Amino acid sequence: MAQQARAIRTRQLILQSAASVFAERGYERTTIGEILARAGVTKGALYFHFASKEEVALGVLGAQMFDDPIPPQTLKVQELVDQGFLLAHRLQHDALVRASVALALDPGATGVNRAAPFRVWIDSIAEALTVAKERGELLPHVNPQDSAELFSAAFSGVQATSAVLCDRADLMHRVAVLVHHVMPSICTPGVLISLDVSMERAELLAAEYEAARRRSEENLTDSE
Amino acid sequence: MAQQARAIRTRQLILQSAASVFAERGYERTTIGEILARAGVTKGALYFHFASKEEVALGVLGAQMFDDPIPPQTLKVQELVDQGFLLAHRLQHDALVRASVALALDPGATGVNRAAPFRVWIDSIAEALTVAKERGELLPHVNPQDSAELFSAAFSGVQATSAVLCDRADLMHRVAVLVHHVMPSICTPGVLISLDVSMERAELLAAEYEAARRRSEENLTDSE
Repeated sequence: MAQQARAIRTRQLILQSAASVFAERGYERTTIGEILARAGVTKGALYFHFASKEEVALGVLGAQMFDDPIPPQTLKVQELVDQGFLLAHRLQHDALVRASVALALDPGATGVNRAAPFRVWIDSIAEALTVAKERGELLPHVNPQDSAELFSAAFSGVQATSAVLCDRADLMHRVAVLVHHVMPSICTPGVLISLDVSMERAELLAAEYEAARRRSEENLTDSE
Repeated sequence: MAQQARAIRTRQLILQSAASVFAERGYERTTIGEILARAGVTKGALYFHFASKEEVALGVLGAQMFDDPIPPQTLKVQELVDQGFLLAHRLQHDALVRASVALALDPGATGVNRAAPFRVWIDSIAEALTVAKERGELLPHVNPQDSAELFSAAFSGVQATSAVLCDRADLMHRVAVLVHHVMPSICTPGVLISLDVSMERAELLAAEYEAARRRSEENLTDSE
């Protein structure tokens, strides 16, 4: 177990270091040597986790995904709202998540499959919307695939705009505004009145997420 | 007149050249010398139009704006839809507009006021939505400022996602999907039924825009 915990930490350290070098120098110009120097790990340690610079980049891109599924809610569309608030929180507080999203949107990073994280998000949202539709939460005209592509793209633009205008300080508000602008177009009225899009919920979700993250970090430390 | 036409063309040439160098090398690493070499103009010609590399960048950022206002429509919200379709068309067909949007979203371009084009778009949309609300086209709860920020941000993400996934081939469809997801949340039903969000309209608008652009280019040539 101790060995596994150390491996997880080394992998995290390499990803965080790579993310900061990518952010400073751009993906294309970054060398493996620069990542090694920043992380302070050996070449062997890096190649144990990643076969190439591109694989490191794919690891960074993957960091924007959630390790654990969102807690299930009575309304499937509430889970989507919760996911939006939580991703906003992680963008505000986790440099690796910010680097992941920046890399996905960096037109200079031509050597990496930047479409991959978009596809993962879209698939996961389309799946949730399909369930929501089966449960009768959505209006009959809704096409889960189109709506999923729109949700993912609109969120991406909302976070990028908030980053440019105010370093993401107003991101939670902007996510709430997004939800207010799309949910009435796709949900039934009975669902809309039960949906919780308040800032209080956003803060509660963020606090629970941070508590779970701390517990999982303590478990890693205990096993060493 | 001949001199003015030449000046307009030189300015365009410098902006197009700068845009292509920014796209290849990133804004920070680009030198004035590289822009001169690409444009094939003298230092004097460049400094006649722009005082610094930052001013060139502001010129590139400004290229995403429309030279002429959108043709007025009976419904103010139809003008917003038309603007979305036209910007999508220009992103698909004008490298300078693409470069402008890429520069606005480039986190590496720290020396430029990247917030400026976002602010111009948001202000112009907020103005249109305020008129729409005065005319009774919008539901009573709508806050034109919040909706304008959301429209601008969502469009930005929709075009960026389409760029990553398919080089903007499906951008017109995605803009229509965006309109279908936000307008029902803010417009009155009587407005919704009259709104034209068809691909036919998008194509007609694009054809009219290209015809007007060709006429204005011919006028420039005639005056030489």
